[in-house]
Amino acid sequence: MSQLSTRHLLGIKNITAADIELIFQTADNFKEVLNRPIKKVPSLRDITIANIFFENSTRTRLSFELAEKRLSADVINFSSSNSSVKKGETLIDTVNNILSMKVDMVVMRHASVGAPHFLSKHIQANIVNAGDGTHEHPTQALLDAFSIREKLGDVAGKKIAIIGDILHSRVALSNIFCLQKLGAEVMVCGPITLIPKHIESLGVKVEQDVMKALRWCDVANVLRIQLERQQIKYFPSLREYSLYFGINKRMLESLDKEIVVMHPGPINRGVELSSDAADSGQSIILQQVENGVAIRMAVLYLLAGGK
Amino acid sequence: MSQLSTRHLLGIKNITAADIELIFQTADNFKEVLNRPIKKVPSLRDITIANIFFENSTRTRLSFELAEKRLSADVINFSSSNSSVKKGETLIDTVNNILSMKVDMVVMRHASVGAPHFLSKHIQANIVNAGDGTHEHPTQALLDAFSIREKLGDVAGKKIAIIGDILHSRVALSNIFCLQKLGAEVMVCGPITLIPKHIESLGVKVEQDVMKALRWCDVANVLRIQLERQQIKYFPSLREYSLYFGINKRMLESLDKEIVVMHPGPINRGVELSSDAADSGQSIILQQVENGVAIRMAVLYLLAGGK
Amino acid sequence: MSQLSTRHLLGIKNITAADIELIFQTADNFKEVLNRPIKKVPSLRDITIANIFFENSTRTRLSFELAEKRLSADVINFSSSNSSVKKGETLIDTVNNILSMKVDMVVMRHASVGAPHFLSKHIQANIVNAGDGTHEHPTQALLDAFSIREKLGDVAGKKIAIIGDILHSRVALSNIFCLQKLGAEVMVCGPITLIPKHIESLGVKVEQDVMKALRWCDVANVLRIQLERQQIKYFPSLREYSLYFGINKRMLESLDKEIVVMHPGPINRGVELSSDAADSGQSIILQQVENGVAIRMAVLYLLAGGK
Repeated sequence: MSQLSTRHLLGIKNITAADIELIFQTADNFKEVLNRPIKKVPSLRDITIANIFFENSTRTRLSFELAEKRLSADVINFSSSNSSVKKGETLIDTVNNILSMKVDMVVMRHASVGAPHFLSKHIQANIVNAGDGTHEHPTQALLDAFSIREKLGDVAGKKIAIIGDILHSRVALSNIFCLQKLGAEVMVCGPITLIPKHIESLGVKVEQDVMKALRWCDVANVLRIQLERQQIKYFPSLREYSLYFGINKRMLESLDKEIVVMHPGPINRGVELSSDAADSGQSIILQQVENGVAIRMAVLYLLAGGK
Repeated sequence: MSQLSTRHLLGIKNITAADIELIFQTADNFKEVLNRPIKKVPSLRDITIANIFFENSTRTRLSFELAEKRLSADVINFSSSNSSVKKGETLIDTVNNILSMKVDMVVMRHASVGAPHFLSKHIQANIVNAGDGTHEHPTQALLDAFSIREKLGDVAGKKIAIIGDILHSRVALSNIFCLQKLGAEVMVCGPITLIPKHIESLGVKVEQDVMKALRWCDVANVLRIQLERQQIKYFPSLREYSLYFGINKRMLESLDKEIVVMHPGPINRGVELSSDAADSGQSIILQQVENGVAIRMAVLYLLAGGK
Repeated sequence: MSQLSTRHLLGIKNITAADIELIFQTADNFKEVLNRPIKKVPSLRDITIANIFFENSTRTRLSFELAEKRLSADVINFSSSNSSVKKGETLIDTVNNILSMKVDMVVMRHASVGAPHFLSKHIQANIVNAGDGTHEHPTQALLDAFSIREKLGDVAGKKIAIIGDILHSRVALSNIFCLQKLGAEVMVCGPITLIPKHIESLGVKVEQDVMKALRWCDVANVLRIQLERQQIKYFPSLREYSLYFGINKRMLESLDKEIVVMHPGPINRGVELSSDAADSGQSIILQQVENGVAIRMAVLYLLAGGK
């Protein structure tokens, strides 16, 4: 049986197209399970997973937790708000202590870029990066690509525009790596102040006119404006952003083809995406959430099997 | 087999006396289960329930969680303190995202009146209202009436005085609806500033003299003073409240019959109820808590069977 | 089969050496279980345990939760940050309410000395004290002594130096009681301002020179500086503390024997213990964490069997 080329899922950068394909095929099976009346499988019955979130998260934490429970894993949750981290403990001490309690896998979100990579060199458990700062968020990229594959049959050869705050997003970079490995063309589109300077070197197109991006693409992956991360002075106001980059149904209907609309959530309705666009038939936003559980089950299952 | 007339439990107003009776009979069975050594039944083994609390709660959340676990449901907890709600997400987006993860039932507390009713028109899962602002809190009313039935044999024909802060309570309205549907007479008693203006139109007596209320009733359901919701200037001070409306053992003993004392908790000891009254043999306060788990098991079980 | 002499584990002061020995033998068995692929036993399948933490904790709460889950107990977690405690409810009301929901055992941490002892007189469930203020923290003492026994073969006759902030620690007192009951000699070492005045009356040696303590002992149990509890003005600065009482590898290597280094965590690296000492081969800090789960399984198992 096939296995992943890695013991950890730290980012998309370090995995292969074959890894991604294996994750997708495994997720296909789990998605079938999730549509049965009995959604639970005993696969990870002897595995304990710690969800360690040093930053708040709704859907990512819940999605992982559901994935873990449906794999019959034992789950413990740790969030930094009620923890020794406040007492000045180091990251390695916190995680090592949790692992000494015989935890097999760690799902971690951390504000610092590279935190899970650093950990992976110092601990024995399998690590899944659930977002490290604005760097990678690999399971989000996998579920996004999986949702495109489900909707359009394939990712290879498709044109994907990632639109919005590329600079402060933890989703953009993982998406670019994932889509390129699967053979898609990728464009990023947003205000110049919200696009990282080096980004062309990754082989993506850069566009500042949102209508041009929409006309070019098969899929528009609209990112949320990370209100909580902005340096206000470098940024157009929300009103300006909405005026120049916000996407609504009328804009979608003016195109000569029907493109797919995605969003990793949570949506700022009326800012980057209007409600009539978010809730339209072209939107696969809720399918992304649904696929997230299947993808995470697949990742955890495969990493556990890699032992 | 009988079924509820509703897919959701949004309030007592919209359910029938037959619904209430069915819930009580089902709770009788579950109460028997809870007194066995093995308190768990496999009824909801394939059901995932999300407890979504946008306001803090101790006993209601724990009571639902225990009810769910004893029905063998999978449980995920979501509270707004560590959530995307802070990031400006709408209520429907939050809940839809949780539901897309294949959640079957939602137990929700929200500060806004009507929030669960609004949701019920937009989502597919069964919803149980665990308190919407100062409006309804149906499972509390059910467990209160169930506890009266258990103590006095029947609710019909009994006289119930609800004493305290009627205006800011999420318990009073549901209790009035529930008790009246079951054939009880209801009186509300409290300072005029804490009684809603329209309340006589619901067919309840209004009384401002607490001793008259106690002499009239078979059961005194003493509500807590909602310190956190008061408009200070319209309200008697706590000291005044305690002096004129606080209930103690001496007052109970001065009556020519033994009335039943209830309180939904948490008690402000020495304010609305003295410790000697709260802990007396006339008090069924802890039985209310115990019955809460059985009532919630019954509600969840019946709603799940309604699919 | 043997049983504990107590229904509650409130502190080490009130249990016997035979109790401790029985806990250790039971923990030996559970430790074997924790090293199997399948770490779960069905022992407490019909038991519900409430973890009630009125103070924050990482490792203690997680360790208890894992112990409970591996015994197959149903677990509910309650922390005061989202609770009725904020609404002014009394401790007994909070706990009684939780117990009325048919909870069998309570694991409690509280800021006030004696809180679990007080509760044990008013409620029926078994209580495990997970730390009451700066008083007792019995499972920590048990896991510390168990770790010494595992490393050195026996506790009797060994010399243990407890070094650091004895005054503000919830670990020191329980450790002294436990080690003495098992026949060890105990010394406390730290700045005079951080050593309780009555401490000699417990039969321990007092030392202010850390090198003398290290030369004397077989085991150094280094406590953390409780930054959050200090009365700043009575205390040496952190820099001074580190200079005069901090322990590093060079100091350990200057001794004519290899002593065992322990720490209850979380470590302030570079303050009471340097990283090269904490991570050295003489340190059994992570074994302490691992043994914590086995010890807590043993305590819960034995208390439940005592019914």
